[in-house]
Amino acid sequence: MNPTATLLISCPDQKGLVAKIANFIYANGGNIIHADQHTDFAAGLFLTRIEWQLDEFNLPREFIAPAFSAIAQPLQAHWQLHFSDTIPRIAIWVSKQDHCLFDLIWRQKAKEFTAEIPVIISNHPDLKEVAEQFGIDFHYIPITKENKSTQEVKQLELLQEYKINLVVLAKYMQIVSTEFITQFPKIINIHHSFLPAFVGASPYHQAYERGVKIIGATAHYVTSELDAGPIIEQDVARVSHRDDVADLIRKGKDLERVVLARAVRLHLQNRVLVYGNRTVVFE
Amino acid sequence: MNPTATLLISCPDQKGLVAKIANFIYANGGNIIHADQHTDFAAGLFLTRIEWQLDEFNLPREFIAPAFSAIAQPLQAHWQLHFSDTIPRIAIWVSKQDHCLFDLIWRQKAKEFTAEIPVIISNHPDLKEVAEQFGIDFHYIPITKENKSTQEVKQLELLQEYKINLVVLAKYMQIVSTEFITQFPKIINIHHSFLPAFVGASPYHQAYERGVKIIGATAHYVTSELDAGPIIEQDVARVSHRDDVADLIRKGKDLERVVLARAVRLHLQNRVLVYGNRTVVFE
Amino acid sequence: MNPTATLLISCPDQKGLVAKIANFIYANGGNIIHADQHTDFAAGLFLTRIEWQLDEFNLPREFIAPAFSAIAQPLQAHWQLHFSDTIPRIAIWVSKQDHCLFDLIWRQKAKEFTAEIPVIISNHPDLKEVAEQFGIDFHYIPITKENKSTQEVKQLELLQEYKINLVVLAKYMQIVSTEFITQFPKIINIHHSFLPAFVGASPYHQAYERGVKIIGATAHYVTSELDAGPIIEQDVARVSHRDDVADLIRKGKDLERVVLARAVRLHLQNRVLVYGNRTVVFE
Amino acid sequence: MNPTATLLISCPDQKGLVAKIANFIYANGGNIIHADQHTDFAAGLFLTRIEWQLDEFNLPREFIAPAFSAIAQPLQAHWQLHFSDTIPRIAIWVSKQDHCLFDLIWRQKAKEFTAEIPVIISNHPDLKEVAEQFGIDFHYIPITKENKSTQEVKQLELLQEYKINLVVLAKYMQIVSTEFITQFPKIINIHHSFLPAFVGASPYHQAYERGVKIIGATAHYVTSELDAGPIIEQDVARVSHRDDVADLIRKGKDLERVVLARAVRLHLQNRVLVYGNRTVVFE
Repeated sequence: MNPTATLLISCPDQKGLVAKIANFIYANGGNIIHADQHTDFAAGLFLTRIEWQLDEFNLPREFIAPAFSAIAQPLQAHWQLHFSDTIPRIAIWVSKQDHCLFDLIWRQKAKEFTAEIPVIISNHPDLKEVAEQFGIDFHYIPITKENKSTQEVKQLELLQEYKINLVVLAKYMQIVSTEFITQFPKIINIHHSFLPAFVGASPYHQAYERGVKIIGATAHYVTSELDAGPIIEQDVARVSHRDDVADLIRKGKDLERVVLARAVRLHLQNRVLVYGNRTVVFE
Repeated sequence: MNPTATLLISCPDQKGLVAKIANFIYANGGNIIHADQHTDFAAGLFLTRIEWQLDEFNLPREFIAPAFSAIAQPLQAHWQLHFSDTIPRIAIWVSKQDHCLFDLIWRQKAKEFTAEIPVIISNHPDLKEVAEQFGIDFHYIPITKENKSTQEVKQLELLQEYKINLVVLAKYMQIVSTEFITQFPKIINIHHSFLPAFVGASPYHQAYERGVKIIGATAHYVTSELDAGPIIEQDVARVSHRDDVADLIRKGKDLERVVLARAVRLHLQNRVLVYGNRTVVFE
Repeated sequence: MNPTATLLISCPDQKGLVAKIANFIYANGGNIIHADQHTDFAAGLFLTRIEWQLDEFNLPREFIAPAFSAIAQPLQAHWQLHFSDTIPRIAIWVSKQDHCLFDLIWRQKAKEFTAEIPVIISNHPDLKEVAEQFGIDFHYIPITKENKSTQEVKQLELLQEYKINLVVLAKYMQIVSTEFITQFPKIINIHHSFLPAFVGASPYHQAYERGVKIIGATAHYVTSELDAGPIIEQDVARVSHRDDVADLIRKGKDLERVVLARAVRLHLQNRVLVYGNRTVVFE
Repeated sequence: MNPTATLLISCPDQKGLVAKIANFIYANGGNIIHADQHTDFAAGLFLTRIEWQLDEFNLPREFIAPAFSAIAQPLQAHWQLHFSDTIPRIAIWVSKQDHCLFDLIWRQKAKEFTAEIPVIISNHPDLKEVAEQFGIDFHYIPITKENKSTQEVKQLELLQEYKINLVVLAKYMQIVSTEFITQFPKIINIHHSFLPAFVGASPYHQAYERGVKIIGATAHYVTSELDAGPIIEQDVARVSHRDDVADLIRKGKDLERVVLARAVRLHLQNRVLVYGNRTVVFE
């Protein structure tokens, strides 16, 4: 695979946006391999993802951002530029459950997405062995009401030390503070319900009590409001009166694994654009 | 089809329940064509549905209930007895939207379920023509804050006059009062969301605002607490950032039609057993 | 809604395609409201759909095709141009089953898609009454082995007479001849199985015999090879050992309705591009 | 969990079957915790699964089969008796792909089903390391046209040596001979398509060529006819024109994992009854 560049752009809608962006790439000899756009008419917003091959692109990498900046500024555009051969680094945060952790590690090894996983952080020591089995560093950082803010400083130091780009909360059963999120905002969480149903703790117990016929799982970016961040992906499974809470938890695990993995993959491929509390997913 | 009898039974769990019930039917020459049971171990409750052919059953119909009563009493059982050739009578309540109404009428004509639909009640005059097209009586009963309690008296009189067994709220955009429900408790509603997400008004607008990736519909029995009654059936459909509120409403209509129809069919076939705020659906 | 123009284009992949097409629209003052593209790298093919508003477009309608032709020719592009205010005319073909017919008529009335349905053609007289109920012309054209070719001439004359743009086989249980398809190739069929499983007659009986746990329905363009044309849309439903053939047929009807309706809607919105035996669906 | 006994019974339908079976259990003091039945009216066959607690059952285990035999014989019943504390032993057969293997091992460790996995057999050496990682014996038995029958003798010896009750073909890309199946008939296979579509080799390539919009996976018992045995479980996933063969394979892996795992779990819980080429799945 030749390396590619990807632009994710959002700006107020106006005529000529597609032409201007496409011309910039064509004029420099780029071959577009993916282009998708979305217009939110209610918000008056144009959002696009455009990916092109770098091998015959005449502009050296370091000049792409400055050159595109000149185009973007008059459009009042927000934009990100990514190169496909920059390997993102993920920290997986867990508590005691191992299914999402195993799944993400397996998918990374199977090359379903491209990333390095140098570190696992946990508030419990239980999954240390799994980390060792796969040669990943493991940091046990227990959290109490009292030590939370000091422990979060340690966590932030670890993210810096390991040069982490993305935190994945793979069944990390702790709330991350607003202060933490402000300093490190790239966090994806898997919530074990079909949000906004069953916010907070014990969603499978809540689902059982309510007698629902379908359960779900939701992957979302973490914001300071609990379980209320922009949703990246959701999926559901049918249940019946025969399923007790243990069955819901078991069936839910299969959902959590695939929903979290899809969200992480979409994020790593720069296919998710957040605006307001919503996402555009360029599949 | 030979006529059948169906018993829906719930009672505290104990040994010998299946044997006692099966013996009662076998001793009288009945051929069981469907038997299903469920034990809720947490609640200590045994729930069953048993259906048998009447043609070689030695006990005359009028003696089945008294005879079974003698068995049921020592078991502290709640039970219902239904005969398949008793045709239930449905009142469909609507407001302005016609998709669920059309769908239920079409299914009844296509014999997907056995019922008579002698009357449509609406708080708007819009669907009178549809009623006439299919030869169904139509009663326009507008509701305001002021007249609600007197209009509900009229509605109850109509249900009595038409000998209605089941009210189906097929997009009836009014809350039915607790007093009404107390007097006529057999009501199925279709709520246009995946409950308990988006209770109350404008669920598709709420869903759009939250940026969900899946929408749903829920058919449930109506209780005095809004949108909180026992769920009979739910289903979902995938949506994306490309779907605006109008798209959610359009896609939702397809869900509402099938979810409501399945719930009505299950109820009419005496396959739904309510206990607490839950249902057992014997499919 | 302001009228829009839509271009569906396929051509050999090369640099600058997006720029050239976008420039053409921008240079003439058009505001793009939808643009999507797909590259089939194996086939070396670029496929795109681009839709823009006509109200501030400087080029009069009759000049758009000639002007774009000049751009398309050097690119060896196949292309279609559509205007959103040209109302397509559909002929629905049926046999005895009414569920897809009712559904399409209801959706057209509910404005889920924009089209006129001036005529229903059937090889059975059964659904004449439905046609009359909705004020649609009905032509009964019985088909036997002997009269098939002469009857197809009549059918073609009717399509011409009613100025039909699209034939929808809504459970028309007859094979259309290759000669017919050659003369009128815009035909969408609903096949009552998850193709390519259960090609040909009685797919639900075949599905029951095979003991599948899921059934499906497939909407596809009709080609001379039976049930082998390009697939537009498919969907499935779960079944169990409790479902006999009649249940499969009943559950299948719900699938057939929505799958056919989605395919017709996508086609009418010019969102389907056929190449080889495949479709690109620009949703 | 107290140990339970489970009877799986099929016999010609007649009156009194439920009563006779339930009486047998009740008369001996058993508490039924699951009872489900199905009547195939076309085949005139009654099929049931009944599970009861053993702790207060008066009949010692070794007498249950002889005692029930006396009841079963006049009914011409086929039946199996299982005890929940007999741990079945599984041999997993693989080739080069590890996703189903990993998944089954993880689920067994997570106690999603109760079984021992003492041995992995493969026609390739690739997954030896995985076996070692989890402390499972690994036997590399390469297969060629020439050595197949002698190698199958070795495989049968291994099954005997390890006292295997069930073979799971977890992406074992070899056809097992009729001779083998005759000697060891308890084999579950995962086929990477929605059978009966795309029988045989390279189903994802076939699916891509056909341009389907949904792909599937099928778990079935292996019979001498390729990919034609009784289906236990199937599931599907939506795909689009954007998915090339590699994407279908990736999405298919998620299906294969859950479909195979569900089938193995259902089999191990004695919930699957085969008759003819069909299964009844008592969920």
